[in-house]
This record gives sequence, structure tokens and C-alpha cells, in this order.
Amino acid sequence: MSKPLVVVKIGGNVIDDDDNLTSFLKRFAQIPGKKMLVHGGGRVASDMAAQLGIPVEMVEGRRVTSAETLKVVTMVFAGLVNKKIVAGLQAENCNAFGLCGADGSSMLAERRIVKDLDYGFVGDVTAVDISAIESMLENDMVPVFAPITHDGNGTLLNTNADTVATELAIALAMDYHVQLQYCFEKTGVMLDADNENSLIEEISPDEYQILKEDGVITDGMIPKMDNAFQALQNGVRRVLIGHADNVLLNAVGRKVGTEITRDRVNN
Amino acid sequence: MSKPLVVVKIGGNVIDDDDNLTSFLKRFAQIPGKKMLVHGGGRVASDMAAQLGIPVEMVEGRRVTSAETLKVVTMVFAGLVNKKIVAGLQAENCNAFGLCGADGSSMLAERRIVKDLDYGFVGDVTAVDISAIESMLENDMVPVFAPITHDGNGTLLNTNADTVATELAIALAMDYHVQLQYCFEKTGVMLDADNENSLIEEISPDEYQILKEDGVITDGMIPKMDNAFQALQNGVRRVLIGHADNVLLNAVGRKVGTEITRDRVNN
Repeated sequence: MSKPLVVVKIGGNVIDDDDNLTSFLKRFAQIPGKKMLVHGGGRVASDMAAQLGIPVEMVEGRRVTSAETLKVVTMVFAGLVNKKIVAGLQAENCNAFGLCGADGSSMLAERRIVKDLDYGFVGDVTAVDISAIESMLENDMVPVFAPITHDGNGTLLNTNADTVATELAIALAMDYHVQLQYCFEKTGVMLDADNENSLIEEISPDEYQILKEDGVITDGMIPKMDNAFQALQNGVRRVLIGHADNVLLNAVGRKVGTEITRDRVNN
Repeated sequence: MSKPLVVVKIGGNVIDDDDNLTSFLKRFAQIPGKKMLVHGGGRVASDMAAQLGIPVEMVEGRRVTSAETLKVVTMVFAGLVNKKIVAGLQAENCNAFGLCGADGSSMLAERRIVKDLDYGFVGDVTAVDISAIESMLENDMVPVFAPITHDGNGTLLNTNADTVATELAIALAMDYHVQLQYCFEKTGVMLDADNENSLIEEISPDEYQILKEDGVITDGMIPKMDNAFQALQNGVRRVLIGHADNVLLNAVGRKVGTEITRDRVNN
């Protein structure tokens, strides 16, 4: 029987605030059994780019990763944020170990090819090698993954952290019984963004289509939901979107947030 | 019988220049058998601090690591430089894996306590745990170590890269037949710094004392030599100071540089 594994992704707003991060790391460290963390970089990278006078380039509404921006995200994600989290977890007696996609070639990517548009050093995942991560997990270490990948030819690439978490969860689902949590600063997916009591406790693909058509699920939540369904379709057992403060409760089987489910007919 | 292991430290001037670094990584990747790399950060960190307007603080001629400077060295050493090296080695089919002292708690340090002087976030090594590094080596991975340590209570610390390499080499000498190379931009230790033909091919502790008293070995070379002798006194089998371009030749048994030896009487 596969062993349980909790894969947690934390986003920008949890990382940006030191108190929020400390509080999250305390709870995460208490998750029993095997676990790993995937993090983004949040505002820290944008602030650093601004301080260094690196302009934010947008192409059709999307941020471009120039060579200079790639340096900043590599420094901030794989250096500053990753090691701050690792040291913070070590202080909680959680034997964390930081890595990115270049380390052990654990995540290969290729530059996104878009006709007439160049998003720069943005990588779409092409291969995941979980051997180093599994070795850590089997030695009771806790991998902490920064969303930087590489192309195998010496170039680092910037990859979306939700996507990184999803790809890792899917690859690890071959050998583990994986629960995937996307943690952020809200309780979950809301029917009404301004009303904390409007939490959607479960979403199936059919319900998602309706909510998307009705404009209830919009913007940044759409790729997150798409990632969630992709994970479920590829062997991940349980996917939740929830508040970072509820990471431990959700890890031990409670449901405080939005659970993404397969089609009801298939359950 | 212990297996051979080559531990290489590369310094600032090798890292600062992209062509030098690429050339070094190509040679390093070709070293047969088990190997690991320890790197500093060179001018990149100073340049970044200057760009960010972080003042260089000096106390009695020594650089102070303020909280802001610690952020910069963490970003640059453990992020930018470490991942650039790892991706560069992966491109040479060398399965590199980056880490710093916080990862797997592989190097614990404590803030340097100096009466009346505060050097800030500078750490003196108190414990080395090589279990994660050995696991990598046994799985044919090549650890790439950034000179950032942690205090176990959530604080990262800046530690001298020569010292980090020495401490790792000593700890690994328990299980491996370790050769330690300090690589830089000169052929080795020179009798006359301006004369490339004045290479000292071997130095024993007695000769070192004389050369130090005569003012031939000065400044930054003194702590490097002290580290070298400390390594030899603690189980490391062979220590060389040489040019980064000669890393492969020295690794396979040639001697192109300065070899540090134990006392001749003890040999």
C-alpha cells in the first residue's frame, strides 16, 4: 500500500508577511508523516526588481521574464525565500531541505514558445524526476521546492508555483497516496468574494463549468482550479484549496476550505 | 577501504567571470569518481549590495554582515550563484544538487561573539551533519554547497567559504579518502606574487612559519593556509592550492600548484 504524502503549496501573501509565514511554518511542521512544501515568491521578487530598477515588462497583460528578471526570481525564490523557509522549519525541528528544478535535474522545462510573443525565461514543465525528492522523503527529510526549473542546457527558467506543485504531486502519486493543498490567505473558493460565509465546500468539474460561466470563478482562480482537476485526473487522491492557517487540520483529514472532487458519477 | 572523494572550493574571481566559470565547470564535471563543490560569491554580492544601496560596514577592517547584507548574501550565494553552477553542471551531464548549511541542517553555526565588536550575522561552524551529502554522493549526485549556515533557531548566517570547504572535507574524511583543492585565479602560492615562475610546489608547517615570518605569505593567504593545515591534521589526505583551470589535473593525481604537506618527519 502506498504511504500517505501531503504536498502543500503556499502563495505570495503567506510569504510576504513574516508573522503569517512563521504561523504557517509552525502548523506545517506539525503535519504527521511525509510532507513537502512548494512555495512561490510573492511580492518580495517584485519589490526587489523595483529596488534594482528592473522594469516590469508586460506582453498582452502577462509579465515577461527578462534575463534581469530571471536573476531576481532565482535569487529571491531559490535563495532568500527558500532558505528562510528551510531555516524556519529547522527551528521547528522539521528537517527541511531546499531545492529547485535544477537540483538533481528534478524538473526540466522548455521556454514557452508563443507565436509573435516572447515571454522570456518562462518554462513549461517537460519532465519531472522525483528520485532525489523520494530519497529525502524516505530519509524523513522535508523537501522545500522553489519554482525555478532548468532546460538541461544551463539555462534556468521561471515556472508558475501552482504548476510546479501540481506536476510534483502527480509524479509523486505514482509511489504515494498524495493529498495536495493549495494554501493562500482565504478560507477557500467563495461564491461571493466579499462574504466569508459563502465558502464553496466542494466543487466537481460540472459545478466548476457552471461557476466559471456564471463569472463566480475568475482570474487567478481559474488556472488554480485547472491545476487541481489535472492533479485529480492523474492520480492525486485529494485536492484542497484553503487558508494557510488550516493546513494542519486539512492534512489530518478535516475539511476547512474547498475540496475539489472528481465527477460525482465517477466517485 | 575508503572511497576517494575530491572536494573543490572555488573563489570569487572564478565565479565573477562567466567564461572562467564555464571553463572551470567543464573541467570539474570531468573529474572521475565522487566529487563535491563549495563556492563563494565573489563580487556579485558586493555589486548587488551596491545596487541596492546597502552600505558596506567595516569594523576594525572587517566587513560586517548586517541584516540587509545577510539577505543579499543569502540571495546571491544560495540562490543566484548556487543555481547557476548547478544548471551549468547539469548541462555537462554532471548531476549536481545545490544546498547550504540550513538544508538538512548540514552545517550549524553560532554568531561570532567578539567583545565590544559586533560582526553581525557571521557564523562560526559548530556542527557538521554529512548524512544528506553522503546520501547524494552514494547516489552519484554532486553536492554544490553555498557558504550560508544556520543557528538552528531560524537565523541564517554568513560563513567563510574556505572554512566551509575545510569543515566539510574534515567531516567527510571519516568515510572517504578526501582530496581538498582550494582553486583560485593563480597557479598556487608564489614566493614572489609578481613572478609566475616562483611557484612554491610544496609547503610543510615549518616552511609555512618561515614564509609567514618573512612576509612572503600574507593577507588572505594566511587563513587559507591555516585551513589547509587544519584539514591535513584532521584526516584529509591531500590538500592543494591551485588554479581553477588545473582542477582536473590535480584531481587525477598530477600536481600543478602548491601542495600543502604535513611535517616531513611525520610523512
